[in-house]
Amino acid sequence: MDRTPFHNEFVKSRIRGREDDVLLMKQFMRGGGVYGSELKTQGFSGYLTELLIINYGSFEKTVKAASSWKPGKKIDIMQHSELEHSEPLVMVDPTDPRRNVAAALSLDKFCMFIDHCREFLKSPEVKFFFPEFPLPIEDKEFFEKMESRKTSQLAIVFETPDVVDDVLYPQLYKMEQAAASLINEYDFSVIKTGVWSGENETVIMLELISATLPNLKKRIGPPVWVREHAEKFKAKYEGAENVFGGYIEDGKYVFEVQRKYTTAKGLFEEQLVNSSLGKQVHQSVSKGFEVLEDADICRLKDQSFRVFLRKWV
Amino acid sequence: MDRTPFHNEFVKSRIRGREDDVLLMKQFMRGGGVYGSELKTQGFSGYLTELLIINYGSFEKTVKAASSWKPGKKIDIMQHSELEHSEPLVMVDPTDPRRNVAAALSLDKFCMFIDHCREFLKSPEVKFFFPEFPLPIEDKEFFEKMESRKTSQLAIVFETPDVVDDVLYPQLYKMEQAAASLINEYDFSVIKTGVWSGENETVIMLELISATLPNLKKRIGPPVWVREHAEKFKAKYEGAENVFGGYIEDGKYVFEVQRKYTTAKGLFEEQLVNSSLGKQVHQSVSKGFEVLEDADICRLKDQSFRVFLRKWV
Repeated sequence: MDRTPFHNEFVKSRIRGREDDVLLMKQFMRGGGVYGSELKTQGFSGYLTELLIINYGSFEKTVKAASSWKPGKKIDIMQHSELEHSEPLVMVDPTDPRRNVAAALSLDKFCMFIDHCREFLKSPEVKFFFPEFPLPIEDKEFFEKMESRKTSQLAIVFETPDVVDDVLYPQLYKMEQAAASLINEYDFSVIKTGVWSGENETVIMLELISATLPNLKKRIGPPVWVREHAEKFKAKYEGAENVFGGYIEDGKYVFEVQRKYTTAKGLFEEQLVNSSLGKQVHQSVSKGFEVLEDADICRLKDQSFRVFLRKWV
Repeated sequence: MDRTPFHNEFVKSRIRGREDDVLLMKQFMRGGGVYGSELKTQGFSGYLTELLIINYGSFEKTVKAASSWKPGKKIDIMQHSELEHSEPLVMVDPTDPRRNVAAALSLDKFCMFIDHCREFLKSPEVKFFFPEFPLPIEDKEFFEKMESRKTSQLAIVFETPDVVDDVLYPQLYKMEQAAASLINEYDFSVIKTGVWSGENETVIMLELISATLPNLKKRIGPPVWVREHAEKFKAKYEGAENVFGGYIEDGKYVFEVQRKYTTAKGLFEEQLVNSSLGKQVHQSVSKGFEVLEDADICRLKDQSFRVFLRKWV
């Protein structure tokens, strides 16, 4: 059902004289990176913005109020709410008491907006509406950043699936989660993850404490006195291939065994396609993907990726 | 008070005809590395061994019984126990109802004995009494082991304090714990720790996942909506020296800050003397110590250390 006519009708009569506040707020939200309710952005829709101005009365009053928002914040202009909602912001639709207009807003975009409002109130400057747009990062700058961070950078690169953004991005965010889970499951440590998608190629970025681990890992067994289990555990590992040694620690059998994946790259190359991925992303990744490490990432020349990369490091 | 005369008297009359079982058991315990109740070994004393044979009747019966022991195992030959004990094995002293003869036995030595008994019962061979004594490891063999494990080896070396073993070893075990705590506190990961002490030099060994960490670490702050705390946290890090960047993640402010110690060696060099160490060990460490890494450990030529090192890797 297209709700637009009902929304337009509700807004039209109430927004008169506040059109500039709405325009100002939309640009302010763009400046904070939180405008747009597509599944890529998970931010504020135009209708939500209009309702905020109607509810609070002006741009300034909205900014002041939002700077003290907490998750669970509920606004119900018509006082006709019929349902409980679990989203960080609940803006009950004035034309439909069961609907949350802010349902698409993620927790982080909700918080980024709060933060943006607070910073603006501290020093109201034009940069909050028109932030400087970062330049694509050059190879040399990227090398310098890597040298100063001394972390491991990984880029999983594959062909961009030919679907609309609202189908693509939820699958990319799912893949981002799946990659992080995989890496943690095999004892690597994620610092952060990110997603970038261009016309031809799509990238899942991961920054790790280290992309390599030693050959051995400890397998800690049952306490020695839990006889049946302990004996079974010992029999499994003692003298087995790829077992370095065994000893008793804190009353438990411990064996030093060969680690299956000593590099994050090797782990992805073997396990990524078995992760839980969305349909189109899975199809594309199955056709082939590449894992670039550190300096190899400079293979990617796309200027919009290079802008993403500047913010990343 | 010297209890020896009472112990001798109790044992003498009851051990007749079982002297060989006692000798056999002591050698069996030596073979398993659990004989000796000094604070270095934390194993079975001679008196405890004699009481085990008296209680169970023979070497073989003791071995069979011990293979099913559980921590909290209590033996009270005179049925006159007066106190609760928390040690893994409680052998109530027949000449003193308040005393646990096995008070010095550690959980791991208790478990090693259980394991030794089980293995012996599976295949009763002479090696359980006279195990092969390992040869000192050569540099080349140590390099090969390091290459196959791909972990980081650290040796903290200092002059052996001039005190008896019963004073020294508890302090060394304390230092071993302190070193492991320090390393974990600063985000490094310990695989195992060990202690070796010779006439001139003493060594605390540590095997780590990695002896280096990246320059940055994440500081995760309060949720953005906990306004006062969140603003304080942000003010502390934003634009501060040695801060790489900040963002919002899962509703919380996160800043990437400079890590204080990026090498385990640097951490020890600066913080070890501030750790909780025993008196004589602290004095010796304060006079000076050295942290050897990986191949540098071959600087230590002591043949008894090299035997320790063979078992270590």
